[in-house]
Amino acid sequence: MTIALIGGTGAEGRGLAARFASAGLRVLVGSRSPDRAAAAVKALQAGRGDLPLSAATNDEAIAASDTIVLAVPFPCVSRLLDAQHARFKSGALLIDVTVPVVFDGAQPRLLDVSEGSAAEHIRRRLPDGVALAASLKTIPARVLSGVAPLDCDEFVCGDSESARERTIALLRLIPGLRPLDAGPLDSARTFERMAMLAITLNRRYKSRDARFHVVGLAT
Amino acid sequence: MTIALIGGTGAEGRGLAARFASAGLRVLVGSRSPDRAAAAVKALQAGRGDLPLSAATNDEAIAASDTIVLAVPFPCVSRLLDAQHARFKSGALLIDVTVPVVFDGAQPRLLDVSEGSAAEHIRRRLPDGVALAASLKTIPARVLSGVAPLDCDEFVCGDSESARERTIALLRLIPGLRPLDAGPLDSARTFERMAMLAITLNRRYKSRDARFHVVGLAT
Repeated sequence: MTIALIGGTGAEGRGLAARFASAGLRVLVGSRSPDRAAAAVKALQAGRGDLPLSAATNDEAIAASDTIVLAVPFPCVSRLLDAQHARFKSGALLIDVTVPVVFDGAQPRLLDVSEGSAAEHIRRRLPDGVALAASLKTIPARVLSGVAPLDCDEFVCGDSESARERTIALLRLIPGLRPLDAGPLDSARTFERMAMLAITLNRRYKSRDARFHVVGLAT
Repeated sequence: MTIALIGGTGAEGRGLAARFASAGLRVLVGSRSPDRAAAAVKALQAGRGDLPLSAATNDEAIAASDTIVLAVPFPCVSRLLDAQHARFKSGALLIDVTVPVVFDGAQPRLLDVSEGSAAEHIRRRLPDGVALAASLKTIPARVLSGVAPLDCDEFVCGDSESARERTIALLRLIPGLRPLDAGPLDSARTFERMAMLAITLNRRYKSRDARFHVVGLAT
């Protein structure tokens, strides 16, 4: 199984690429720039040995993959999806991990997305034949890009049971991560606010690692 | 120190009354009906021995207290606050623990509150001289009304640093609960969605105990 990381050269993208590749998946690290994609793969290989990572342009990665993780900054999403619309394979699954947070100077701010969440914004811009899930929004990029087990839960929502199941199966491959099914796509409104809450708590308690665990749930 | 529980005869109110009283605080269990307040106090005493609990009407409890926990169902909030407006002591702290969730049959649904959250809705209806914090929204009433240590975190936001500090000092008295300062009052939008997420997860994973712990935060 091949998984594409779009925006694979950012901190979150690199972290996820390494974690999925460490779990044995073939990973395409996508970037607008083939050079930056190649450099990211080289850096990841240098740190962690011979992982099944390949560099690709975003165009190539989207056209080649049945599972695509969208890890570009939220302000880039609309333009990217409009440009890539015709390249998606029918039946592909897109996993949205974006958080609509911008920084005014050092001050983080959750954008007011008219569709209610980044995930719903993305749904409106995706071809009908592409399934959409939202997840991995609440774990800081810094934690994802480390090598320690994640030791937390992550929430999954999606536009179909199947989109959620495929995403959950994928996340189960990452050590220390418990994926939890949170239902329809509009639950992303909650995840995105929780991502902002984690940022707020990190700043107040001088951490960079805040993430969530649900107590009292046998899964 | 006396703390009033408005809506003290509901599951959440009773649970909090018992936990605060067990921590040594004098607690006024408030209800519209003096008989129901008295019955709730009697039931709590029967289960847990000689706790410093007293029955009161909501009117009496609000007029007498510097710290007031608002635990009525959200649909009752506006009417109650309008009726009680003149009774609040200046300098009092109100802690809003309401969640704007209604059930359509068995189906839970988060209400769309025009102010953004129940807490902000309440702020608009509270006298200026009363401070407001929001907390205890994400822990299920069933968990609060048990006797086991809560073993989770709870988030606190408020309209001033002082409102948050007073609330955090209070919550620290409850065993197993770590209060976390999440900043300004509009963070309640996040807490209320998280309460809905806990309900969703409980239903999906056949639990009634889902609540949150933040990993990676040294406090």
